[in-house]
Amino acid sequence: MFDKDNPTRDRLICEGLKSMILNGFDGIGLNAILHAAGVPKGSFYYFFKSKEDFARALMDTYEREAEERLNGILQDRSRSPLQRLRDYFEAIGQEHLAEAPLAGCLFGVLSQTAAARSPEFRARLAEVFSTWEGELAEVLEEAKSAGEVDPALDAKEAAAFLIDCHEGTLVRMKVDGNRNSFRRFQRLALGSLGINSLSLDEGVGP
Amino acid sequence: MFDKDNPTRDRLICEGLKSMILNGFDGIGLNAILHAAGVPKGSFYYFFKSKEDFARALMDTYEREAEERLNGILQDRSRSPLQRLRDYFEAIGQEHLAEAPLAGCLFGVLSQTAAARSPEFRARLAEVFSTWEGELAEVLEEAKSAGEVDPALDAKEAAAFLIDCHEGTLVRMKVDGNRNSFRRFQRLALGSLGINSLSLDEGVGP
Repeated sequence: MFDKDNPTRDRLICEGLKSMILNGFDGIGLNAILHAAGVPKGSFYYFFKSKEDFARALMDTYEREAEERLNGILQDRSRSPLQRLRDYFEAIGQEHLAEAPLAGCLFGVLSQTAAARSPEFRARLAEVFSTWEGELAEVLEEAKSAGEVDPALDAKEAAAFLIDCHEGTLVRMKVDGNRNSFRRFQRLALGSLGINSLSLDEGVGP
Repeated sequence: MFDKDNPTRDRLICEGLKSMILNGFDGIGLNAILHAAGVPKGSFYYFFKSKEDFARALMDTYEREAEERLNGILQDRSRSPLQRLRDYFEAIGQEHLAEAPLAGCLFGVLSQTAAARSPEFRARLAEVFSTWEGELAEVLEEAKSAGEVDPALDAKEAAAFLIDCHEGTLVRMKVDGNRNSFRRFQRLALGSLGINSLSLDEGVGP
């Protein structure tokens, strides 16, 4: 069994992520990835059985790295729960903006372009979203306990909605190449959660 | 100049739409489209100079047909403005649900997979979103005048937000293959607009 931290494999993963986030499952040019990673074709098939297998490895890496980079913000008890949520998405927005218009979320892109490919693929994506929802819902539950959001809020549903909005935001960011859609997301999706926040909140209450 | 209503061209457009919405710009198999449409390869290049040109034709058709099918709902003065918006998205949701998990929005898919391809492509997609925003913003302005939504609402921003959320909803629908994400959109995005959000549940149905 090969080493998962093999530097050749790492280079393939790194180039594959850039390419797949940009163009979708079918948009990746294997030759361009091999060239950019400086890897011969045979090595690719040593590490990955198929393109589907490669995509699964990309998802694993992407999920783990995002959790390592960002989940500390969600768990930082020195900030209020709602503030943590806002800071979390602000950090994500900054990351995407640094890459716009080439930014995107691997999970959104694969959902869009490869979910119909196989039941296993869809199940893996569903699992990713479910885990992510759980993480955000936990913070929303804390926000409810802290009186920062409406106690009647369905935390799981609101978490899923934030993720859906976020994915849509990134779709639009690819077209506009700027922060506008992310600002809307922050104002109208995140903003609507807080009990004392701006305009839309009147409509959100019980 | 060929006839834009040529039946061969129509069949190519019809098959191309299905394929591109499902798999993205690079996911379309030209041979499969030609086979499904019963058209030889030479005919394709008679009608379309390139795949980019084909994608532009798909966008034109998709936009026109969606407007013909759905914009009547937005302009139906027998219903209140907010009700029209809800009915409009309900109709869109029904269309997508009928096709789930193969559903999707051509504009979202192309934004996700082809926006980075060329400035012209991005400009065309930006134009599509801008037109769509204008149509929804007009109804939101009417809803403001009718006292159905907060008069301080930025109609243009709210319209853009609804579109972003809607695109994210469809990303998720490809994974879940059900109506759940659309229900969240209806409850939490559309629902948050109304001043008296309790009346929303009547409009959403089972």
